[in-house]
Amino acid sequence: MAQSDTITREPPAPAAIDPKVLRKALGAFATGVTIVTTTGADGGDVGLTANSFSSVSLSPPMVLWSLAKTSSNIEAFRSARHFAVHILAADQESLSGRFATKGIDKFAGLEVERGHDRIPMLHDCTARFECRTTFQYEGGDHVIFVGEVLDFTHSERSPLIFHGGRYGVVIRKEAGRPECPLADSSLSPNDLIFHISRAFFQIRREAMEERRRRGWTEHEYAALSVLGREDGKTVAEIAALSSFPGRQVTPEVIAGLAERGLVTVSGPIGGGSEVRLTASGRQSIIEIIAIIKASEADALKDFDFSEVQTLIQLLRRLSGGSQPGWPPLPQQDQRSG
Amino acid sequence: MAQSDTITREPPAPAAIDPKVLRKALGAFATGVTIVTTTGADGGDVGLTANSFSSVSLSPPMVLWSLAKTSSNIEAFRSARHFAVHILAADQESLSGRFATKGIDKFAGLEVERGHDRIPMLHDCTARFECRTTFQYEGGDHVIFVGEVLDFTHSERSPLIFHGGRYGVVIRKEAGRPECPLADSSLSPNDLIFHISRAFFQIRREAMEERRRRGWTEHEYAALSVLGREDGKTVAEIAALSSFPGRQVTPEVIAGLAERGLVTVSGPIGGGSEVRLTASGRQSIIEIIAIIKASEADALKDFDFSEVQTLIQLLRRLSGGSQPGWPPLPQQDQRSG
Repeated sequence: MAQSDTITREPPAPAAIDPKVLRKALGAFATGVTIVTTTGADGGDVGLTANSFSSVSLSPPMVLWSLAKTSSNIEAFRSARHFAVHILAADQESLSGRFATKGIDKFAGLEVERGHDRIPMLHDCTARFECRTTFQYEGGDHVIFVGEVLDFTHSERSPLIFHGGRYGVVIRKEAGRPECPLADSSLSPNDLIFHISRAFFQIRREAMEERRRRGWTEHEYAALSVLGREDGKTVAEIAALSSFPGRQVTPEVIAGLAERGLVTVSGPIGGGSEVRLTASGRQSIIEIIAIIKASEADALKDFDFSEVQTLIQLLRRLSGGSQPGWPPLPQQDQRSG
Repeated sequence: MAQSDTITREPPAPAAIDPKVLRKALGAFATGVTIVTTTGADGGDVGLTANSFSSVSLSPPMVLWSLAKTSSNIEAFRSARHFAVHILAADQESLSGRFATKGIDKFAGLEVERGHDRIPMLHDCTARFECRTTFQYEGGDHVIFVGEVLDFTHSERSPLIFHGGRYGVVIRKEAGRPECPLADSSLSPNDLIFHISRAFFQIRREAMEERRRRGWTEHEYAALSVLGREDGKTVAEIAALSSFPGRQVTPEVIAGLAERGLVTVSGPIGGGSEVRLTASGRQSIIEIIAIIKASEADALKDFDFSEVQTLIQLLRRLSGGSQPGWPPLPQQDQRSG
């Protein structure tokens, strides 16, 4: 670190900075992801993924990006009179990967529109800028290309982000959040579980009202849910898969479902009896699941794709990664042992 | 839009581009947020918020940013031999706002470290680059400043994002997600409610085991929860506040709690009787809530601040904004009407 009292110092020799560490530090600046395209001297389409884009000027409209002097595409862009910059949307990670890959036909199968000098321009990006190369500036091991924007398109799609060497999505910050008093005798909006519980009850409310109208207990619903996921389980398996303190799928619960024609049971009911949904039972659970899915879709109506994905991803991490079990988790939960 | 068959065209007159619309399109490129600082000709500290930062070169190490020619700070940076770029963390929105505000003493109360030529450098940013001004390039209504990085610091803090004119945070995409077969007879990891339910059961599991050990039914727990949030409610109010299909806080439930010394009831038990926690009842609910909060903290141990805030924000939106009610929602829920 610089010393605070030093007024004049010689700069350190360039060797003092490790490019790998510097690259990591520079990666702390999050960016969008762009694909820059042009036409080579041979008339072929050229394009690459870049995150060095920056807007420069509004009047005249100008943007810049930079390209390594060692890039195989450097001559194409140095001699090109025009280029196009495409800002990628959150779901275009694979397109980003394609244009970052050497030795493949990056444009294979892609529909392109032709701009000035027939430069290839892609569809369906968040924004696109068609530029005339205005300046090429020296930038160490890179060339800085400054272009005047001749034409552009723009949509409201959520952008793809690059940060710390990985892709991400952006979530807007809320303008402000009401303060809640801290309390130890209740949960409050400061607690995550407050919001998880609310969402849980809200999305399931209509389906649970329908369950009650059909005269199913919570235990019966739990048993039917397990069979809806995978039919043909034993009574003991169903009990284990729906285990949660206060919820008990006993042989009597299964017997009650069998009496109402919702399941069939192999032989006299015991822990080892196999249970299967009848056609009526399957139809019933499909109807309940459809209500839950409709409530979920309703709750998510103002969410965009990347917000839903982010929410699922965070909840997945919260519940401990990718284990495929349906809640409630099996009783051999580590945290209660 | 450009027409696909046109090979040579005159560029449109600059007047054809509306700067407001262009600015919006350029805002589609998400960026981090930086504060750039230097020392003015008078020796005073100068700094401003900028998102035009871009890394340029690794060897020699170089970065760039651009500043409007009309900026009151342009002469300071034009004549400065050094500048520092600070990349802001997710929780530094107010610092960003301060350095974007004109006419205030931006450095008031801030601790600064002194770099080359005594330029002011801030603490606690995600990354910081101390630079020697190498090039100043023409960029329309802006000047592009290219600096050689002399020294830098770097941390793993989550960055502040600017996109579409608003602040945000970045959420990393998962490397890949197992595909789930679509099914209409069960919920799967494709469904958000699958993950909400898992998190709900997991975070509450230990507390619900403790509830069972204490011999409380779910209905009794619901009643105690309501009183833990706000003591002194009538039996009817408690029933309404804990209403959910299958959950019933009846006068008998309250009578059971009173028998065990957990609550006191005013007069003979009826809908209008006021119910209050006893010291023992209050202590009991505090203990259960503490278990839930500990489980939540455990589940969140690998989350950083902005991830937790993002999760809460998304769940809050999911449940319909800022209404303060505790789940379950009152029975006059629109969606069941």
